[in-house]
Amino acid sequence: MGRWGNDARGRLEAAALALYAERGFEQTTVAEIAERAGLTERTFFRHFTDKREVLFSGAELLKTLIVDGVEDAPPDAPPMAAVMAGLEAAGAFFQASVPHSRQRQRVIDANTELQARELSKLATLSAAVANALRGRGVGDPVAGLTAEAGILVFKTVFGRWIGDAGPHDWSPLLWKTLGELRAVTASD
Amino acid sequence: MGRWGNDARGRLEAAALALYAERGFEQTTVAEIAERAGLTERTFFRHFTDKREVLFSGAELLKTLIVDGVEDAPPDAPPMAAVMAGLEAAGAFFQASVPHSRQRQRVIDANTELQARELSKLATLSAAVANALRGRGVGDPVAGLTAEAGILVFKTVFGRWIGDAGPHDWSPLLWKTLGELRAVTASD
Repeated sequence: MGRWGNDARGRLEAAALALYAERGFEQTTVAEIAERAGLTERTFFRHFTDKREVLFSGAELLKTLIVDGVEDAPPDAPPMAAVMAGLEAAGAFFQASVPHSRQRQRVIDANTELQARELSKLATLSAAVANALRGRGVGDPVAGLTAEAGILVFKTVFGRWIGDAGPHDWSPLLWKTLGELRAVTASD
Repeated sequence: MGRWGNDARGRLEAAALALYAERGFEQTTVAEIAERAGLTERTFFRHFTDKREVLFSGAELLKTLIVDGVEDAPPDAPPMAAVMAGLEAAGAFFQASVPHSRQRQRVIDANTELQARELSKLATLSAAVANALRGRGVGDPVAGLTAEAGILVFKTVFGRWIGDAGPHDWSPLLWKTLGELRAVTASD
């Protein structure tokens, strides 16, 4: 059963997001989420450690997709090209669930603690990408800096991609944003 | 009285950092900080809202230095040059206190919650720089992306600057790192 199928996990996620949007993250309890999903609290805790994890349970999969993409890039690909391959692979993760991504982002934007958690997630992602680059034989400081630049591109693209005008196609947006980052770093 | 003078605030900061390094941030109480500084808890709370704020009380000044530097850059300076002017201005903030910066960073590196707070600080800094660019007539997405690139340079330089091999001269390190960022974004 897919992420948004009629399975317990998917129902819990949908119920949680709807409640966070309606009443705010702080004001929502696990009991309410379970009730809305027509399931028990026990089932909730079989899938998630707490109500925050509902919003961040995709982080591991996202990291795996990106890191695998970096590792699987052609051996002769330069560091940034390898990172872009990883970020392209992440597109599939989001493409399936635009309304979900939008709703999730609105919940996060409304809560300082969740924003901090999101920033930590991105920092972890950056460290994982840097490690993947080192595994490809890329030395420092290039590995760390390329990973950070890649995550900056990712963050920017994601913001645009779920923006009101969007969603656009993921991959062209990635390359456009990398081009813009390159342009601004040259403007001195 | 300067930041590291014999004033109450400076004594409290020094005592707090020493204790955080010795016993860990979590394990240190305000009472212990005040005692080490030879002051009362009441005096502590006149200067800081809590023990975390001791580590982040400089954030406002840092932001002011950087934003003022961006605003005061020559009107015809391109966006990244204006950001670099702001980051150059921040050098003075750190130059005076290398051992302090190093000790503070070690405390933060050892604590996940403090790391998250540091990331939030950088995000706030980036938003302030983007706003300063908009005030110079820079539109989006250039303003946001240039600010993010600038904060990435800042973060990278800071890490190098307090690294074991350092400290180096702040300004050359800034330009070197911007050049490296430009180079990695071009390597596709």
